[in-house]
Amino acid sequence: MVFEEYAHGGDIYRNRVRLDFSANVNPYGTPKPVRDAVVAAARSLEAYPDPYCGRLRAKLSERLGVAAEELICSNGAAELIYQFAAALRPQQALLTAPSFSDYEAALRAAGCEPSFFPLPREEGFLLTEGILERITPETGLLMLTNPNNPTGRCILWKLLLRILERCRQTGTWLFLDECFLELTDEDSAYTLLDVLREGDRVFLLRAFTKTYGMAGVRLGYGICRNKELLSRICAASQSWNVSAPAQAAGLAALECTGWEEKARALIGREKPRVARALSALGLAVLPGDANFLFFSGPEELGRQLLERGVLIRSCANYCGLRAGDYRIAVRTRRENDLLIEAITEVLHGRDGH
Amino acid sequence: MVFEEYAHGGDIYRNRVRLDFSANVNPYGTPKPVRDAVVAAARSLEAYPDPYCGRLRAKLSERLGVAAEELICSNGAAELIYQFAAALRPQQALLTAPSFSDYEAALRAAGCEPSFFPLPREEGFLLTEGILERITPETGLLMLTNPNNPTGRCILWKLLLRILERCRQTGTWLFLDECFLELTDEDSAYTLLDVLREGDRVFLLRAFTKTYGMAGVRLGYGICRNKELLSRICAASQSWNVSAPAQAAGLAALECTGWEEKARALIGREKPRVARALSALGLAVLPGDANFLFFSGPEELGRQLLERGVLIRSCANYCGLRAGDYRIAVRTRRENDLLIEAITEVLHGRDGH
Repeated sequence: MVFEEYAHGGDIYRNRVRLDFSANVNPYGTPKPVRDAVVAAARSLEAYPDPYCGRLRAKLSERLGVAAEELICSNGAAELIYQFAAALRPQQALLTAPSFSDYEAALRAAGCEPSFFPLPREEGFLLTEGILERITPETGLLMLTNPNNPTGRCILWKLLLRILERCRQTGTWLFLDECFLELTDEDSAYTLLDVLREGDRVFLLRAFTKTYGMAGVRLGYGICRNKELLSRICAASQSWNVSAPAQAAGLAALECTGWEEKARALIGREKPRVARALSALGLAVLPGDANFLFFSGPEELGRQLLERGVLIRSCANYCGLRAGDYRIAVRTRRENDLLIEAITEVLHGRDGH
Repeated sequence: MVFEEYAHGGDIYRNRVRLDFSANVNPYGTPKPVRDAVVAAARSLEAYPDPYCGRLRAKLSERLGVAAEELICSNGAAELIYQFAAALRPQQALLTAPSFSDYEAALRAAGCEPSFFPLPREEGFLLTEGILERITPETGLLMLTNPNNPTGRCILWKLLLRILERCRQTGTWLFLDECFLELTDEDSAYTLLDVLREGDRVFLLRAFTKTYGMAGVRLGYGICRNKELLSRICAASQSWNVSAPAQAAGLAALECTGWEEKARALIGREKPRVARALSALGLAVLPGDANFLFFSGPEELGRQLLERGVLIRSCANYCGLRAGDYRIAVRTRRENDLLIEAITEVLHGRDGH
């Protein structure tokens, strides 16, 4: 980035932030073995990283039960959004509104002006069956997030299967962003991975960033059973996009058994508590399945919280959303208490009255 | 990379390598403050990196005397080759043969089939004036490396200025890769930076990788006084492509005054010595200005050296080169001695007779 306007959460570099609720990473942060792996990698920075991410892909392959040739690693999941769009260059693409803004940016950069399928606010932004008839043989690509960002709503499993079936019929590529799935309530977190067939025009996006608190070191991956597409992505990218510290961190992360379960348990306890507290303060909180919550409130809330050093994600720049729509990460009990306190202070005065 | 064939030097991951002469990094490796910065960055991996590389660009701006808005940082210099080609998407592009293979790969990925201007072997692969008449108003882009990779030859300063002038006349973009310039003999290392004007269609590519032994952590940058092009590159890329450890490493590297001078002095002493030794062994060594040497010898030399754990760069896959053409990095006296010993052994039997 040189001088584009920053459109994401987490800009802690140009704000005085003591509490960051704008980025949706694991509330427990980075596991110690992952930090240790980066420290160890610092000893040998002069060598180029493995362009194939050989060890990392082998270990992921084992973990996921997917052939290593169907896995592609990246410099953060976000890189794959741009690489995928550039490799596919679809004529027509369909996104939901709202959805993560980089989908649209990546498509535009690839010369495609996407269409939007609106998620109705009055139905809690749930993806509806209406999407099915919008998928036609002319639809080159459908991009979905499960659970959706910033609403936190999962796609109903049966609908997702019907979407997959419809995409198979029309020859439409389905790009499904599952970056938040590992930190999502277990009873609504289904991955499409289990039902993919060889050659399917489906690309699943995953991230280490959120689950293992690795946003700074960047590591994402894609799962795709269509080798021609993976080949095209590789041909359009440098060989060494995944740094040596990131590969080491990823290998260490895959050894951290229980890290996501521990986080899911915390989020499972804290999310309803935060949601109740915000509702009690008069904010319209959406029930969400992910490790973050979406709510609507006064337009000035974000600015007023920032004055108190608390950063939350304004969703005003999402297509289909508006000023006063916000997303917050669910974090540790102590941090959540501080957030609730700060919001109380803003909405009801210093002592909560 | 998933299953493309690897076409670069430095694949130490699928070979048993005790001495790597295939990658052209600073023979002194990574400065300790750079390693320390990566270790320190490991403490806060959960935060997203600064998308603007604000501190790094400010410091680079100061160092180079270039406005920060004319600087763009990247996940290694190689990333910018692809980003630049994708942003420009020229109809016609001109490369030299030989030159770094990623230029061609990046152009092809952007839908452009480049033309080649041959560097004549009989003239030591020097860039000749003939290039000037190949630059026409139809030439959207000219990509050059100074000094060239893998030959190590610098472009004569007067010719470079005439090329710049010609490109200004024809409206041709000039992408000039100066990644090796900081480790090049001072009396032939001229940067085009000093003569750039605002709006010039010139992109200078630079790397921390080589100078500061940072290939593993990835950090490159571009200098461009044409803001519209920088804006297009940003629009086509994720916001967080430069990791937090890389930004920290770059900041630390810029404090390491004397690191490149120290390396240049070593290379200045060692390069003639290695060149003489290889020539004495009957290899055709090109006089080169960079921190590496190009030579021609028996086709099996690379394989035979690898059997001894010594990796050199076969240049057989460069356009305009052939089997038996090799590139080696100039490294420390001890390592160079081991290389000469190994080559002697291969060419003349175990005891050098």
